[in-house]
Amino acid sequence: MLAEIITVSIDGMGGDNAPDMIVGGIELACSHNPDVRFLLFGDEAQLRPLLDQNLKAKAVCEIRHTHDIVTMDAKPTAALRSGKNSSMRLAIDAVKNREASAVVSAGNTGALMAMATVVLRMLPGIDRPAIVTSFPTQNGDCVMLDLGANIECDAKNLVQFAVMGEVFARYELDIEQPSIGILNVGVEGLKGSDSVRKAATILQESNLPIKFYGFVEGDDIGKGTVDVIVTDGFTGNIALKTAEGTAKLITFFLKKYLMGSFISKIGAVIARPALEKFRTHFDPRRYNGAMLVGLNGICVKSHGGTDSLGFAHAIESGVKLIRRNFNDVIKKDLDHLIAENINKPTDQKSESALA
Amino acid sequence: MLAEIITVSIDGMGGDNAPDMIVGGIELACSHNPDVRFLLFGDEAQLRPLLDQNLKAKAVCEIRHTHDIVTMDAKPTAALRSGKNSSMRLAIDAVKNREASAVVSAGNTGALMAMATVVLRMLPGIDRPAIVTSFPTQNGDCVMLDLGANIECDAKNLVQFAVMGEVFARYELDIEQPSIGILNVGVEGLKGSDSVRKAATILQESNLPIKFYGFVEGDDIGKGTVDVIVTDGFTGNIALKTAEGTAKLITFFLKKYLMGSFISKIGAVIARPALEKFRTHFDPRRYNGAMLVGLNGICVKSHGGTDSLGFAHAIESGVKLIRRNFNDVIKKDLDHLIAENINKPTDQKSESALA
Repeated sequence: MLAEIITVSIDGMGGDNAPDMIVGGIELACSHNPDVRFLLFGDEAQLRPLLDQNLKAKAVCEIRHTHDIVTMDAKPTAALRSGKNSSMRLAIDAVKNREASAVVSAGNTGALMAMATVVLRMLPGIDRPAIVTSFPTQNGDCVMLDLGANIECDAKNLVQFAVMGEVFARYELDIEQPSIGILNVGVEGLKGSDSVRKAATILQESNLPIKFYGFVEGDDIGKGTVDVIVTDGFTGNIALKTAEGTAKLITFFLKKYLMGSFISKIGAVIARPALEKFRTHFDPRRYNGAMLVGLNGICVKSHGGTDSLGFAHAIESGVKLIRRNFNDVIKKDLDHLIAENINKPTDQKSESALA
Repeated sequence: MLAEIITVSIDGMGGDNAPDMIVGGIELACSHNPDVRFLLFGDEAQLRPLLDQNLKAKAVCEIRHTHDIVTMDAKPTAALRSGKNSSMRLAIDAVKNREASAVVSAGNTGALMAMATVVLRMLPGIDRPAIVTSFPTQNGDCVMLDLGANIECDAKNLVQFAVMGEVFARYELDIEQPSIGILNVGVEGLKGSDSVRKAATILQESNLPIKFYGFVEGDDIGKGTVDVIVTDGFTGNIALKTAEGTAKLITFFLKKYLMGSFISKIGAVIARPALEKFRTHFDPRRYNGAMLVGLNGICVKSHGGTDSLGFAHAIESGVKLIRRNFNDVIKKDLDHLIAENINKPTDQKSESALA
């Protein structure tokens, strides 16, 4: 039986080091994924010479030329209005038109979210998309959402994030029944803002077939207390970047102290294979590729400042979601969850979880 | 000339490991601070035998007996109502009555804040106290506030935090003109919630003699981009705990990889002095002791789960603030800042910074 060909559309011009790192990323990703083809949107005059240097990528890429790009500092509304022929927009359109099964972009996050929402539309039962990705913890990986798509979230948004995060964790982390926690400043029920307290009440009282743990605190992210961490996009983005910054800070001082004396340098040389494994474990490129979940299509956002290896990981995240029919599964699960919830109405005190 | 005696009041019963770690902390702190005396509030039957084992502490402590304690899970309102004879409340009262120059407690944060606010009252021009402490960065230490006193903050609260954080950083970090950033999800002016954007506008347009950098992101905490990071208590608490959790996660894996093979263990033994220095650099006990700033008196909150060494650091933070007349200085600086601001009214678009 012939393997089915998977097509991924790529925003060839998004990201700080585009288009070089984009084509380099395709070159790396395609060697592990021989059944994947790419629609590469962007400036042919820049893309063609890069493909001539990356022959594996050249064999699986079809350039779709456009001059227009969405700049990294464009406002989402401006990008929506005047970016209809941009590489980002055309790459999203390809998913809408079923030419591709996923889109990957390292471009402007706000513009990508606005365009993807307008073009792909929301899944039934979901009001807003959320950015979700996985993290290393002491206890395997966890997923967290929202990481910056929505600055302010009400209880209903947080409940929807919990449901989507649950499905994402099942497929991304291979966990049968992921546990879910809401990020808060304490574990007691009376702590936190109205929206986190109300969301916790809804999840506790609802008949949703999910494993709700309750509140978790910032240090529970690294501990791996739960599999899914639910938060608003403001807090989630700051937690994500604080964790990244702390990781850099600590490895900076580790290196400084190890390089601080001749003796410790010798120790570091002897322990080099272990230190290399340690470095690889926390390499942010391995975790690159966040999904915009809640949309009627797979849309992956790569870090704008990543390199080819990081972009290859973002492509592979998208490919993994396609292989697992993530979007069909999440649609079915949301239908199921909405039905569950409507058939067994919860206590009148709490608002409907997925209205 | 005789050195002036400094008196610190201690909540002897607050914290997970009280009163053992409290008395142990006094024992450690008093050897570096021969001019400090302690009023130790709590259950004499428990405290007396501990002092008999810690003779340096015994020589400088006066026990003030009370049976009542504020439990770690008490609601602030309940603690206020029924905790008038608790060790925490009496320790705060001692500052109010000028028997002591600072109070240190490792007890229930919410109760401490509520009681300290009611007893000590706010400084003129400040609406709410904030929790502030210092952090290690790649570029010296920085201070961040609020770390959990106020779940929701408006622009005026954030501006007041900026002013108090500026004074705190000058004295705590010995920086002549600390730079100030507001924590946000992006550095562009249009990012973030209404309150952070409005606070940034006020700080930019005001005549306050402070060095306002603009917005910073989560990874700027570890980079040390600014000296003072201003945020609401919800985000600040989650950023603080995420950083702590990430530090633990990373050192957990560093140890795991170094202990993973015989060869790397040898490397680690050779590099042990460097690894010890690294460990000490990030020892959270060294940073223990957050100040409740904005009150008419010095009130230091120790981490509830700390040990004697951590509690000794919290005591020393308080003593340092007393030695530098922190509260007189901040009062004078606030007066000056309020006057500056009132004498030179800012653009009508922005509300008064310190009204």
